[in-house]
Amino acid sequence: MRMTFRDKLRAAASRNDSLLCVGLDPQLERMPVDDVLTFCRSIIEATSDLVCVYKPQAAFFEALGLEGWQALKATIEAVPDDIPVILDAKRGDIATTAEAYATACFDVMGADAVTVNPYLGGDGVRPFLSRPDRSAIVLCRTSNPSAPDLQDLEVPRGDGGSEPAYMRVAALANEWNREHQNVGLVVGATYPEELSAIRNRCPDLPILLPGIGAQGGDLEASVAVGLDVAGGGLMLSASRAVLYASEGGDYAEAARVVADELRQAINLARAQRTVPSAD
Amino acid sequence: MRMTFRDKLRAAASRNDSLLCVGLDPQLERMPVDDVLTFCRSIIEATSDLVCVYKPQAAFFEALGLEGWQALKATIEAVPDDIPVILDAKRGDIATTAEAYATACFDVMGADAVTVNPYLGGDGVRPFLSRPDRSAIVLCRTSNPSAPDLQDLEVPRGDGGSEPAYMRVAALANEWNREHQNVGLVVGATYPEELSAIRNRCPDLPILLPGIGAQGGDLEASVAVGLDVAGGGLMLSASRAVLYASEGGDYAEAARVVADELRQAINLARAQRTVPSAD
Repeated sequence: MRMTFRDKLRAAASRNDSLLCVGLDPQLERMPVDDVLTFCRSIIEATSDLVCVYKPQAAFFEALGLEGWQALKATIEAVPDDIPVILDAKRGDIATTAEAYATACFDVMGADAVTVNPYLGGDGVRPFLSRPDRSAIVLCRTSNPSAPDLQDLEVPRGDGGSEPAYMRVAALANEWNREHQNVGLVVGATYPEELSAIRNRCPDLPILLPGIGAQGGDLEASVAVGLDVAGGGLMLSASRAVLYASEGGDYAEAARVVADELRQAINLARAQRTVPSAD
Repeated sequence: MRMTFRDKLRAAASRNDSLLCVGLDPQLERMPVDDVLTFCRSIIEATSDLVCVYKPQAAFFEALGLEGWQALKATIEAVPDDIPVILDAKRGDIATTAEAYATACFDVMGADAVTVNPYLGGDGVRPFLSRPDRSAIVLCRTSNPSAPDLQDLEVPRGDGGSEPAYMRVAALANEWNREHQNVGLVVGATYPEELSAIRNRCPDLPILLPGIGAQGGDLEASVAVGLDVAGGGLMLSASRAVLYASEGGDYAEAARVVADELRQAINLARAQRTVPSAD
């Protein structure tokens, strides 16, 4: 049987001593080479012993039309088999439509996990959870300026109090996780307080934190409150800081240097946090 | 200058005397022919004088891999220029990523509008609104059983009371609509009360109602409360009831018969509603 996303993630994190996720966001105007697949392959080859997971961003491939779609599939294939891939596609639909998206992400593209939007409720998430070896990483609290528009609205809690809507998503994620333990969460790296509350509510879910490359100052705080009891369960994702570390022909080497700096900075923050390690 | 989605919609609705949207959901196991493009083209040719808009569902094309992606583009090209196309892709991301999705939907695929998920807030919607001639149709209240998980949660209202989260989305949609008048809403056809409240809050926004083919009983109630003051502004969408009206070689003719029945049933409901018509 195929390894689950979670086991694959845990093994890669342990083998590479890394909680770093490298996001693959190929933007033609920033790339030092013309070919998306060449670019992504070079980045993967240069960093595959430094990461626990890769996260290609579907939008940048889709924007390139058919060729981009082909490059996305080939990019996922270029990731070594023992490193999991999260397709960052933020899909969300219901019933047979959501099943069709799951087919596209898991069977056609071969991703181990996909990011999913929870606005449609459980019907919009469960079709992505029917394969025990594949995971859905559910948007919980994002870090964009207008995330509070809906995510921070206070909603009634069972005990008569209230909580932000994203905490309701966290609670629902625990329910959705029950059958196959294959749910994760997306939490913006710039909000350690929110991350702490979400980790307390969901002690067992892997959490993807996008945006650590650009805002490194929050890395220590995020690691301090975001690790699970085993000292893992976090995927700290950097995209452009790694991909575009150099504008020249040495972009892959430059990407490797930045990725290793981030990996080490994360590990330093892990070491400074005084919890028993399960490794 | 290119016609806006709204003007194109209004013109097609008037020309074909129709508020019917035909959803293009090509499911291989239900299709009477093997080729998705042949199937979609035949449906379009058989119904293009009966509809105000077409709505291809991205998921079913994506599930077919590269060939499906090609067929999606060709299907959109097969729609006559004077009928608008909503790409039902339920995208939602922020900043350059959302811009890349807008490029994919509008420039690569050529759609006039795209369905968008509001969970990320304004940052997740505005990149789809920067082209005045293209629209974003924002998920507001969907009709799936678990839609209440988040959409119905009571959130604080400015006056000290509360309202369901989907009403907050409706209010935000009015704001997002201000600059280019190019926002619409998705509201499930099975909830006339919710539709009525949303129409009152958003008197001017076009509303897409999926699911009228399967649950025809709600059609009259939906039309009664969902029309705008000009007697339009509604797109009542049927997919499978039209596409799979026959399992045989006469599927296009059968689709035409069902589409025309729906169009007429909608028009009967419009006539029974005693408001001044702007046509």
